[in-house]
Amino acid sequence: MNNYMPTGGIEWSQDWDPTTKLAIKVTRHLHAEKSPYQQIDFFESETYGTFFTLDGLMMVNEKDEFVYHEMITHVAMATNPNIKKVLIIGGGDGGTAREIGRYKTIEHIDMVEIDERVVRLCQQYLPVTAGHLDKDERIQLLFTDGLEFIKNTPDNTYDLILVDSTDPIGPGEGLFSREFYNNCYRALAEDGILINQHESPYYDFHVHGMKRAHLRLNELFPVVKVYQYHMPTYPSGHWLFGFASKKYDPLKDQNREWWESLNMTTRYYNSDIHRGAFMLPNFVMEKMK
Amino acid sequence: MNNYMPTGGIEWSQDWDPTTKLAIKVTRHLHAEKSPYQQIDFFESETYGTFFTLDGLMMVNEKDEFVYHEMITHVAMATNPNIKKVLIIGGGDGGTAREIGRYKTIEHIDMVEIDERVVRLCQQYLPVTAGHLDKDERIQLLFTDGLEFIKNTPDNTYDLILVDSTDPIGPGEGLFSREFYNNCYRALAEDGILINQHESPYYDFHVHGMKRAHLRLNELFPVVKVYQYHMPTYPSGHWLFGFASKKYDPLKDQNREWWESLNMTTRYYNSDIHRGAFMLPNFVMEKMK
Repeated sequence: MNNYMPTGGIEWSQDWDPTTKLAIKVTRHLHAEKSPYQQIDFFESETYGTFFTLDGLMMVNEKDEFVYHEMITHVAMATNPNIKKVLIIGGGDGGTAREIGRYKTIEHIDMVEIDERVVRLCQQYLPVTAGHLDKDERIQLLFTDGLEFIKNTPDNTYDLILVDSTDPIGPGEGLFSREFYNNCYRALAEDGILINQHESPYYDFHVHGMKRAHLRLNELFPVVKVYQYHMPTYPSGHWLFGFASKKYDPLKDQNREWWESLNMTTRYYNSDIHRGAFMLPNFVMEKMK
Repeated sequence: MNNYMPTGGIEWSQDWDPTTKLAIKVTRHLHAEKSPYQQIDFFESETYGTFFTLDGLMMVNEKDEFVYHEMITHVAMATNPNIKKVLIIGGGDGGTAREIGRYKTIEHIDMVEIDERVVRLCQQYLPVTAGHLDKDERIQLLFTDGLEFIKNTPDNTYDLILVDSTDPIGPGEGLFSREFYNNCYRALAEDGILINQHESPYYDFHVHGMKRAHLRLNELFPVVKVYQYHMPTYPSGHWLFGFASKKYDPLKDQNREWWESLNMTTRYYNSDIHRGAFMLPNFVMEKMK
């Protein structure tokens, strides 16, 4: 066990809080670029395969991206099989669009990513998440600000909105604002569902984002729940999504039979974890009161 | 976010796998000692309060010890309220004995810890877990090898055995052996339950321990299940316990009403997470096949 970087190498690290960091030995720094929006880096590593960071924060790696992308997608789909029109805000790596695209019942996917360079670089370096983006004709790529896009979206446009954002700093900050959620609510159909990246209950910085997102959703939607999953390369590994909806409840309305009839191969999600993920520790529920 | 160790300080770190480490800025190295069994260190930190390590591995810290100690204890207790006689193997920090001691229905707790120095130092530096050890008269401290102890334990002695071990290296290795589990089975009453530290499904080293523990339990017990929880300071934060039993099933036999009638204050465990924790991701189930 005690053979970390025995032969040298390059160390990548991310601060998880002001006194904690995760460090990963990388074999190659594949790409570094400053886009108009953020610093973008791609690395190659033994344990995680290829991974990329935005402003130094781990976004996606080949080892555990499936956890995040399955959990942002299948909970909503198994709750309402009639979802046809989907908006993804962010998610430039393509993983969320890949998972939602697995449903043949989906007719259209708008993917609104502010930073085209993220998409183009993921297409080059991370085919596992972005490889299908130019192959699925239902996907419309829109390189614009999600905040502006949703402001100009007509009422009742989408059955499902997936907010696949970064932390509430930098380009992701507006995606935690009241105005943004108001417009999402408006743009959703009468039985619409919104899933949002809901930060984490462990370190203070993420607890703040979690509380903020939860407060906003609670002001608007009749159904607001939070579900958790294990995402080891995000700070603390304890990560959350919000499920906000105008009509459907993810537990009462779970359509287990329909979802299982699809025979979809998944590595994290299943019909049981759909339920189990909503069963939260007391300290998480208390922090959201 | 990017202000890790802005003013210097001492860095403690643990290798999570050969290419990954977690580093924590500590404010004081409170104690260092080599016992006959292992290296023992205590540190003070801003985020985690006091924590201690054995052979360099994080054991217990004040920020998240409640997760581990509640989850090792309450699942079994809420399954069989008639548990009276408990054996703890390891658990020198006292946290498991503290949680089990909260049940007035428990009559006797044998706590078998190979290394007396761990207990004495935790009594000095970590009163949050060890402070009650000399106050609860039901607790019998036995400083001896758990492997030898269980070999010499008569049949049908305990209602519950809690294996609160380190990783399967060093003093903890024997606690993952077939002989050890055979003796645990024998020492358990006819409706006995065994809970064991079951490693993690993420990094290869821990996956190996997880498979080994699971195989051993499956050879012996009619009921074998695994449950998960979020333990951010253990490698990957995705950690498991095994539930092995001669009779009771943790889901079918959960006595929710009895447990809730106790009005016990907990920070992680509750009657819902009792169920949710057994709902495992596909990749975890597949690795245990």
